[in-house]
Amino acid sequence: MSKVLTPRAEDFPRWYQEVVSKAKLAEAGPVRGTMVIRPAGYAIWERMQAELDSRIKAAGAENAYFPLFIPNSYLEREAEHVEGFSPELAVVTVAGGKELEEPIVIRPTSETVIGEYLAKWVQSYRDLPLLLNQWANVVRWELRPRVFLRTSEFLWQEGHTAHASEEDARAYARRVLHEVYQDFMVNVLAIPVVVGVKTARERFAGAAATYTLEAMTGDGKALQMGTSHELGQNFARAFEIDYLAASGKLELAWTTSWGTSTRMIGGMIMCHGDDHGLRVPPALAPVQAQVMVVRDDDGVALAATRLARDLAKAGIRAVLDTNTDVAFGRRAVDAELRGIPIRLEIGPRELSMEQITLVRRHDSSRARVSITDAPAQVATALADDQRRLFDEALAMREERTADVATVDEAIEASGEHWARLPWSEVGPEGELALNEHGASVRCLTRPDGSLPERGDSDPNLVAYVARSY
Amino acid sequence: MSKVLTPRAEDFPRWYQEVVSKAKLAEAGPVRGTMVIRPAGYAIWERMQAELDSRIKAAGAENAYFPLFIPNSYLEREAEHVEGFSPELAVVTVAGGKELEEPIVIRPTSETVIGEYLAKWVQSYRDLPLLLNQWANVVRWELRPRVFLRTSEFLWQEGHTAHASEEDARAYARRVLHEVYQDFMVNVLAIPVVVGVKTARERFAGAAATYTLEAMTGDGKALQMGTSHELGQNFARAFEIDYLAASGKLELAWTTSWGTSTRMIGGMIMCHGDDHGLRVPPALAPVQAQVMVVRDDDGVALAATRLARDLAKAGIRAVLDTNTDVAFGRRAVDAELRGIPIRLEIGPRELSMEQITLVRRHDSSRARVSITDAPAQVATALADDQRRLFDEALAMREERTADVATVDEAIEASGEHWARLPWSEVGPEGELALNEHGASVRCLTRPDGSLPERGDSDPNLVAYVARSY
Repeated sequence: MSKVLTPRAEDFPRWYQEVVSKAKLAEAGPVRGTMVIRPAGYAIWERMQAELDSRIKAAGAENAYFPLFIPNSYLEREAEHVEGFSPELAVVTVAGGKELEEPIVIRPTSETVIGEYLAKWVQSYRDLPLLLNQWANVVRWELRPRVFLRTSEFLWQEGHTAHASEEDARAYARRVLHEVYQDFMVNVLAIPVVVGVKTARERFAGAAATYTLEAMTGDGKALQMGTSHELGQNFARAFEIDYLAASGKLELAWTTSWGTSTRMIGGMIMCHGDDHGLRVPPALAPVQAQVMVVRDDDGVALAATRLARDLAKAGIRAVLDTNTDVAFGRRAVDAELRGIPIRLEIGPRELSMEQITLVRRHDSSRARVSITDAPAQVATALADDQRRLFDEALAMREERTADVATVDEAIEASGEHWARLPWSEVGPEGELALNEHGASVRCLTRPDGSLPERGDSDPNLVAYVARSY
Repeated sequence: MSKVLTPRAEDFPRWYQEVVSKAKLAEAGPVRGTMVIRPAGYAIWERMQAELDSRIKAAGAENAYFPLFIPNSYLEREAEHVEGFSPELAVVTVAGGKELEEPIVIRPTSETVIGEYLAKWVQSYRDLPLLLNQWANVVRWELRPRVFLRTSEFLWQEGHTAHASEEDARAYARRVLHEVYQDFMVNVLAIPVVVGVKTARERFAGAAATYTLEAMTGDGKALQMGTSHELGQNFARAFEIDYLAASGKLELAWTTSWGTSTRMIGGMIMCHGDDHGLRVPPALAPVQAQVMVVRDDDGVALAATRLARDLAKAGIRAVLDTNTDVAFGRRAVDAELRGIPIRLEIGPRELSMEQITLVRRHDSSRARVSITDAPAQVATALADDQRRLFDEALAMREERTADVATVDEAIEASGEHWARLPWSEVGPEGELALNEHGASVRCLTRPDGSLPERGDSDPNLVAYVARSY
């Protein structure tokens, strides 16, 4: 295949920009930091939405929609929250041809406006837990935008829940972390995320604890793929979310919030992509198999149409490419760029033997298979390649995570990839030193990799250190 | 049943506000004119999205996403467009802590920003037609907001397409009108929309022709449920959307746009609701059947659980209500308010006879049916009531549409309901007179009710006149 992309080893950020552009996933928008998500990119987002939405609903949360516009005064009610978000806000000052009396903020996240309504809807312990989610756009003004990873406007889901006790809120924040996010990222995105807790320094503005899922990118950096927050009673206090307990006493609720965004598209590209383009995990792929007519002769198009239909009947997301006006090599390169897991090439020669060529995007392997066997063979290849993508990503992550003993060693290692060291060796001062060298503590886990109970006060924890996107 | 709502005949707008609030569909947002869509309302919107999205994809359009923010200069490129939307714009002047050099407009609709990208993506006749759709929020500052019907922010889909010829653009605008919108409104919403063309006065700002679908509300007014526009070459000229034709000549493209919004939720309520609350058409309903445990005794809950499972297996969207802490009467009134098409009541007495009571929201009829027959009976009732809702709405519309001869008669009739008269009797001057009396020409059709070729220049057309929401 001709070289259409800058090799990753040569310039990873440039490779990324080229993949996004050449696979027609997205472009920069006209206003600084915004993006246009093209159909090929949006189809990936729709698949992410469908997979996450069913898991969110299975966890008992219901979808709702809250306004884009938030009165400035709402943000100011939670001191840390407004301090954290102020530098990133976009503000509407004119509407309907008039200067507004109170400026309106475009939501950077919706804790405050949702807090106001949770306070109305939560009256008694019978109303709890109250579990909401919304799919929406949010705006955080971005000075160094990078498509999908950091954009001034992005699409996401944000969950917001209220609970009767701290234990219940904590259990739910962790349930979403594992059952919704980790399950989706591991089993659909094939990304071996490290699941841990953020240090106080890296916590969400206004949270008591922030749990995170961190992915390793192809250049050994880290990308935060999603977060789930215990908000304690901070927002409940600011918005007076209280309820009449069974005891008859008025109690403050405990809230959580949790989110994932279009940034995951960037994570998927950066984790699995190779020098030929995207490799979309089969479980995610909007198109799992592309049936390609090499040359339309002797009933090839008819046989290809039938094959595409048989694949669809077998539950495989298949499309038919009969665009023989374009050179076959170019169409094949394009399918590679777009990361379609399986190509099924069918031409007059193959057809005369009732065969097709099955090409796997994962390793570029090619095999002749009989047309009748094709659906079963494709299903097997999809399942195998899903597993192999995960295994390779996990092997890469382990290979590129150095166990070190000191902050200085962590700083050095983070120039190349991830480092792991005892949190007791780092502490808030070590964290500052890491930040000064462009690295950060991505998260803390227990020594066996499992999720700590909470917070960064346990000296036995392990810190993951890396540069991040 | 106790009277929980103001009767429609007494005060229709008040009845509407009470239904929206008591069925927990939506509330006013904190910023003037915005709304909070609660889970019961959002579930209806999700069903509308699913039904429309599959029809949009079947019509060949692909989903994409364009930015919320539009440079002010883009809007100014199409003179009529900017004039039409200027009074409704919300403007961002501060972002990232700084005053912006060029103010940013929050999209009131996306013709301009999408025009800019169509111009990049359309190069040759091979790129046409280019068919895009997006699901998004838009902002049009509203001085007299009414939840779902007119809100400063609303959710919608907007399609934008580019074509090689006027004929092709026209055919596609009309295809969406009929195959996507009319099919959805008639067969899913059970609303007998009148499909016609807008007069020049009522046209979308910047369009060459606007097609519309108009519903009659329970108080005899009109509600515009959706529109599809031929934009001629107006936006193609403003944004330089041109292409190399097969002939080798550079040609200007022809574009269309079309949209439907959360306003349809209001239309569904106002068309089908009665004095007990919502009546959600079965084909739309997020919950088609609610299995209600009257009293949990002698294995009633177990039997109810099994029944709910059997309904789900039969493809019916069913939920189980075992909330016996709340008085049964109150739960029944609540199910009525929310417009759930079928209630299946099951108590110890019914169960001892292996029966349940099937209550139809449509006409409050009650019937004992055997548990084993229930899924088949529910399926039949759902299909019947879907048809009956449509038939009743059609009968109401015909009964309440007066054939009149003059503009004066139309003005008088529009105080009560709709009027229909020859367009040649109205004309632009008559239209002005209607407007002065609070009515308007909703659309023009051929005398047989079918869609005119285009525009208001044909004197044989029939004008529909009404007051509108």
